[in-house]
Amino acid sequence: MAINSSISISYSPGVQSMLPILYTAWADRVLSPLEIKLLRQAAANASFLSKEDRSHLLQWGQPDRPPSPLLFRYWEIELQRAAAELPAGMPKTLAHLGLQMGTRAGATAWDTTEVLRQLQEMESALGQISLDTHHQLFGTSPPKAKAGLPARNELARQLAQLLDQPFPDLRERMRSLLSGPGFELQHFEGKEDYRKQVLEWLLHLAQQGFGALAYPFAQGGQQDMGAYATVFEMLGYHDLSLAVKFGVQFGLFGGSIHQLGTKRHHERYLEAIGKGELLGCFAMTETGHGSNVRGLETTITFDPSTDEFVVHSPRESSGKEYIGNALHAQLATVFGQLITHGENHGVHAVLVPIRDMEGNVLPGVRVVDSGYKMGLNGVDNGRIWLDTVRVPRENLLDRFGQVDAQGRYHSPIQNSSRRFFTMLGTLVGGRVCVPRAGLSAAKAGLATAIRYGLSRRQFSSRPNKPETLLLDYPSHQRRLMPLLAKAYALHFSLQQLSQDYVGHDGEDMREIETQAAALKAYATWFTTACLQECREACGGKGYLSENRIDRLKADTDIFTTFEGDNTVLMQLVAKGLLTKFQKAFNEDGNRALLRYLGGRFTTAVSELNPFTVRNTSQQHLLSEEFHLAAFRFRETKLLHNLGERMRGHIKNGKSAYEAGLIVQPHMIALGEAYAERLTLERFVEAARQCPEGAPRQALRKACQLYALHTIEAHKGWYLEADYLAGNKTKAIRREVDELCRQLRALSAPLTDAFGIPDAFVGIKP
Amino acid sequence: MAINSSISISYSPGVQSMLPILYTAWADRVLSPLEIKLLRQAAANASFLSKEDRSHLLQWGQPDRPPSPLLFRYWEIELQRAAAELPAGMPKTLAHLGLQMGTRAGATAWDTTEVLRQLQEMESALGQISLDTHHQLFGTSPPKAKAGLPARNELARQLAQLLDQPFPDLRERMRSLLSGPGFELQHFEGKEDYRKQVLEWLLHLAQQGFGALAYPFAQGGQQDMGAYATVFEMLGYHDLSLAVKFGVQFGLFGGSIHQLGTKRHHERYLEAIGKGELLGCFAMTETGHGSNVRGLETTITFDPSTDEFVVHSPRESSGKEYIGNALHAQLATVFGQLITHGENHGVHAVLVPIRDMEGNVLPGVRVVDSGYKMGLNGVDNGRIWLDTVRVPRENLLDRFGQVDAQGRYHSPIQNSSRRFFTMLGTLVGGRVCVPRAGLSAAKAGLATAIRYGLSRRQFSSRPNKPETLLLDYPSHQRRLMPLLAKAYALHFSLQQLSQDYVGHDGEDMREIETQAAALKAYATWFTTACLQECREACGGKGYLSENRIDRLKADTDIFTTFEGDNTVLMQLVAKGLLTKFQKAFNEDGNRALLRYLGGRFTTAVSELNPFTVRNTSQQHLLSEEFHLAAFRFRETKLLHNLGERMRGHIKNGKSAYEAGLIVQPHMIALGEAYAERLTLERFVEAARQCPEGAPRQALRKACQLYALHTIEAHKGWYLEADYLAGNKTKAIRREVDELCRQLRALSAPLTDAFGIPDAFVGIKP
Repeated sequence: MAINSSISISYSPGVQSMLPILYTAWADRVLSPLEIKLLRQAAANASFLSKEDRSHLLQWGQPDRPPSPLLFRYWEIELQRAAAELPAGMPKTLAHLGLQMGTRAGATAWDTTEVLRQLQEMESALGQISLDTHHQLFGTSPPKAKAGLPARNELARQLAQLLDQPFPDLRERMRSLLSGPGFELQHFEGKEDYRKQVLEWLLHLAQQGFGALAYPFAQGGQQDMGAYATVFEMLGYHDLSLAVKFGVQFGLFGGSIHQLGTKRHHERYLEAIGKGELLGCFAMTETGHGSNVRGLETTITFDPSTDEFVVHSPRESSGKEYIGNALHAQLATVFGQLITHGENHGVHAVLVPIRDMEGNVLPGVRVVDSGYKMGLNGVDNGRIWLDTVRVPRENLLDRFGQVDAQGRYHSPIQNSSRRFFTMLGTLVGGRVCVPRAGLSAAKAGLATAIRYGLSRRQFSSRPNKPETLLLDYPSHQRRLMPLLAKAYALHFSLQQLSQDYVGHDGEDMREIETQAAALKAYATWFTTACLQECREACGGKGYLSENRIDRLKADTDIFTTFEGDNTVLMQLVAKGLLTKFQKAFNEDGNRALLRYLGGRFTTAVSELNPFTVRNTSQQHLLSEEFHLAAFRFRETKLLHNLGERMRGHIKNGKSAYEAGLIVQPHMIALGEAYAERLTLERFVEAARQCPEGAPRQALRKACQLYALHTIEAHKGWYLEADYLAGNKTKAIRREVDELCRQLRALSAPLTDAFGIPDAFVGIKP
Repeated sequence: MAINSSISISYSPGVQSMLPILYTAWADRVLSPLEIKLLRQAAANASFLSKEDRSHLLQWGQPDRPPSPLLFRYWEIELQRAAAELPAGMPKTLAHLGLQMGTRAGATAWDTTEVLRQLQEMESALGQISLDTHHQLFGTSPPKAKAGLPARNELARQLAQLLDQPFPDLRERMRSLLSGPGFELQHFEGKEDYRKQVLEWLLHLAQQGFGALAYPFAQGGQQDMGAYATVFEMLGYHDLSLAVKFGVQFGLFGGSIHQLGTKRHHERYLEAIGKGELLGCFAMTETGHGSNVRGLETTITFDPSTDEFVVHSPRESSGKEYIGNALHAQLATVFGQLITHGENHGVHAVLVPIRDMEGNVLPGVRVVDSGYKMGLNGVDNGRIWLDTVRVPRENLLDRFGQVDAQGRYHSPIQNSSRRFFTMLGTLVGGRVCVPRAGLSAAKAGLATAIRYGLSRRQFSSRPNKPETLLLDYPSHQRRLMPLLAKAYALHFSLQQLSQDYVGHDGEDMREIETQAAALKAYATWFTTACLQECREACGGKGYLSENRIDRLKADTDIFTTFEGDNTVLMQLVAKGLLTKFQKAFNEDGNRALLRYLGGRFTTAVSELNPFTVRNTSQQHLLSEEFHLAAFRFRETKLLHNLGERMRGHIKNGKSAYEAGLIVQPHMIALGEAYAERLTLERFVEAARQCPEGAPRQALRKACQLYALHTIEAHKGWYLEADYLAGNKTKAIRREVDELCRQLRALSAPLTDAFGIPDAFVGIKP
């Protein structure tokens, strides 16, 4: 885009004088809460502005309406021109520049001393101006790295570009915002202050338009679920309470209306939800029924005499539990058994107002604070009971089940089980997002632990020798390098999952649900294990709150439980795979089975030849072919065995339910193997896509370590299955040692490439 | 002991009237802070007491001077006699009984209404009287289980008796005290309030005489380290901040004076320390030197001109870090390099006053609060720097190294390395205690998770069937039962370690140090892993602070780091074993080696015959012989391989230091194998010692599960070593499944037997 410098917009002197401030506020493409406040105060108080000037200014003070790139560039050129004309000796400040521009634009009756004073006040309220911005305006002082990112070497820079895809600009905006004024991390002694701050942050994100990203254009959104998920991921670096509250408000609550509601619900609610003007919660889980959603006790009973639903918690245990946003919400999406004329149509969702706009709890509603938790104390979780609360019929979120005025039920999905799972399918978005924020926390922990390992020395070979760096200890490399490799692996598999989810056409939903369940469980377990190791690897420093690992760990610990308990999810995965497998089997017996397995098993059989089983050549051990074959063999054989076991138990007279109970541990193993295979495939693919050169080499190494370390972790299984011989598993151990050593040399750029602002990494460089 | 009921002690009417209150206060053999306060107030205010009565009462109001069992029994008989004579219709209260006894003893000028009122006031301040006590006095109402313990079945009762050994009475006293008034667990929003409460608790324990238990009789102690360690273990159920502060004050600080000081230090300090009148800290770790104590930078330089030591932190990084009690301490045991006439004699300890008795920090001392931590926020950790602080020469803790007035150094241990390790050997007490408190926390977590698994139902085979108990899910059994078995295993190995430590005669200290290092690391890693699993096994309930797992987890997380970082300790263990091994080898080559191995290896060779390797008979798999042989084989082979590796690297030109670095991961594996073998041996022995019957059967099952689950965890290694064939490892997996199922049936009594007061278990029954 060529800028024609002869374009000219005629601003009033008042607006001209404010341009340097405006430009600076918008320079990082986001308005911080402080900048918004400043612009609003200026609009309200600056004596030199006309009424038109004020409304002009207010228009540019809306965080979700950034000036167009063209306009911004125009400002820049105007400012540079004016700056060049500043009289020699006049200080190069925003205030002086503003005064100069206002005067040039023809201000006549100004008390220039007073205008300068007011501008200076604003400039000082704006705080430290980035060197970058200063350089743009005045052409002096050197440019500097952006938004608190550590200085990077070339490899780190190239890898960062890769990891920032496909939303590099959005990520950069989030980095600016979260490490800018107003978003400083704090320690709160009590939960009340903490919740208040998190609510403020939430509202600010809403103002910037981040909350509505996934919603339709018509409701002020961008219809961009991928962007929404990226914002959620970035929040994982900052404060997980904010991330979770953000997810509850815009993802679960807003998402339930978006996904389960119809046009009238969208039109009535979504815009206000996106702006944070209507707060809500997602009331599914009950005390008595956590994972077993089908068994919910809450009833939603239609009363034709008043054309209303009566929403009711029949018992203490029917109360909704762990509900996020429960203490701030005005509206709740409540799940319960839909009953019309005495007939139960299964679980549906209905909108129930629980507070008025002044925050008073409505009649029939009881809300109790869940109190302190292991972490996430900035989220207001609560328990909610409803005592025959009446809501109009239109409050039913009726995309998948409608009730007419006569109480007749109608659904586009006849099969009640399919209907139930279709509704639950709307939860998949959460399962796609949650592990990404969890992975951000794990990355922040890894960056902290690796930075510590690269700065801390302990013990030396003899008294006067320099001590050895922690990360030069092979045992320390063994602790951290496989985690670093796995963080990369998960980054790519979760990115791919998000893209598949966003791009799905409804047909492939079943497959995506299985992937989301598997990767959610696999990635969040990783986060828990990774942060534990990082804590220990930092010794006492890892225990101090100032280094953040404690909070990251405590906040993400529940990620393995919420949005579907991991063990339950892994069983879901196994059942999904088994169904597919058995269907193929039943249709056409063993031949279909082989077809289903895509020839994998036959390949596997050739891999089971004595030479391959004992092959310890480095070339073989490091090859993608070996890794992929080993991962696929494990998944396939576990699936096959599981099917055999089930069949065996049933043949021996067990019910399918009993048989399912017995094979549970095998189901979990299969779910994990599935997630591992998927993750390896994504990582291999990402490395292949990477242009030749150092970044690709680094990714290849990390991918090899991920693959071999995973195989090593399952070596007992592989040995039992005669897929690997003892000499080969021992050779694999040696390769893992060697890869850890090689990755240690790359560990600084590999962690820098995560692009985590310094403020969120524990150990300061 | 036969009580002669004709014994008669003539108390004054005033004291007689107080007997019911006194008896009740002492009934559980401890005085709670509230009871002490009550007795002191009574002594100060009760109008019907004479001056002699008051001093009588004060004497019985000292928590460390319980009435003798004989005296207590005498009170009981007197009270029962008086109670039997209470006029019909008179309320059976302590106040009425007291009034009756005072009157019977000849009180004449009493305003009985007023005396009754005062006694009633005291009775009501005393709070709920246990049904047990009431029954003893008045013979009415049924007796009840003690001190908040859950009602137990017979098996639980018998197991509890076993676990309470060898200090059943002390444990019962601790249970009474900690679940009684004044010790209620609380949530504190800020660390200041929390620290204040923990200090109060600490002082109360000191008043009761618990702090001095390990000190010499001459300084008010009991010379009973075993009792001290038991108290520390019991504190692990209550509040870990209290446990840690208790350990710092009486174990590390007091212990350093006890172990490293000489008679004059004992006489001057120990009594005041035991009573909590002198608070202190243990300043060893420095920011720059955590694990590498030999490299400490603090200097202790003798100045002959003033007969003083100058204690100095030369750099910022020389500051003492993570020092517990730093904000409350008046005195510090400071470790540093002892220098006389320019010669460095290595690390020694010196006493440095850091605050006056009013709490003001002394000149030259700088103390900074460590701030918030992941847990243990009731402990006042801080950083301490000393700027040329002068202390008299006698402040050197000089048991292992003296300096005379001329600055001449003398030590009973010539070899400086041996001297250093002898001094560090005094830390062993901490390593014996820490894992026991950690295990208590793990037991409390297990009790919570198992109770939850036995009450929570989820999913059912079909809609109208009752839902399945969580603990009836095989995957849930797999999560929790091996942990329960391992908790028992560690209970016995840690008990044995304590007894060996207490009973050692100096000769076997090296062996005990190795055991302590190995079991400290092994047990504290277990605590971390166990509590993590318990959190997840309780789902959302495990995340709520009301169920305690969060605090137990966060508080014990640092146990893997302090008192010796676990990875460093495991290397220490391996080095100890290697030295012994190489010594034997060097002395007499392979023959000595075989002797050293105690024939284990030869046995092992016979175990490696194809039949044993593939033997899957249940009798074999469940046999102690197989378990012990497999554990010993693993330890021995790891040791042997480690020696070979070291030799190989050195032969290839590596220095011993470099070779040590390379084999680090193998060292850690060996340390673990050593701890496992030791633990299994202790558990097998404990089960053997247990009288025939249900408790022994339960212990055997738990022991089998511990053994087979551990072998299963290492199955990759065993398969690689050709010690087990694939068919055998698969059979082991099935046995583990089966043992989990069997232990689930015993899980309620097995956890009840831990004897954890209800107040400290999360899920209420």
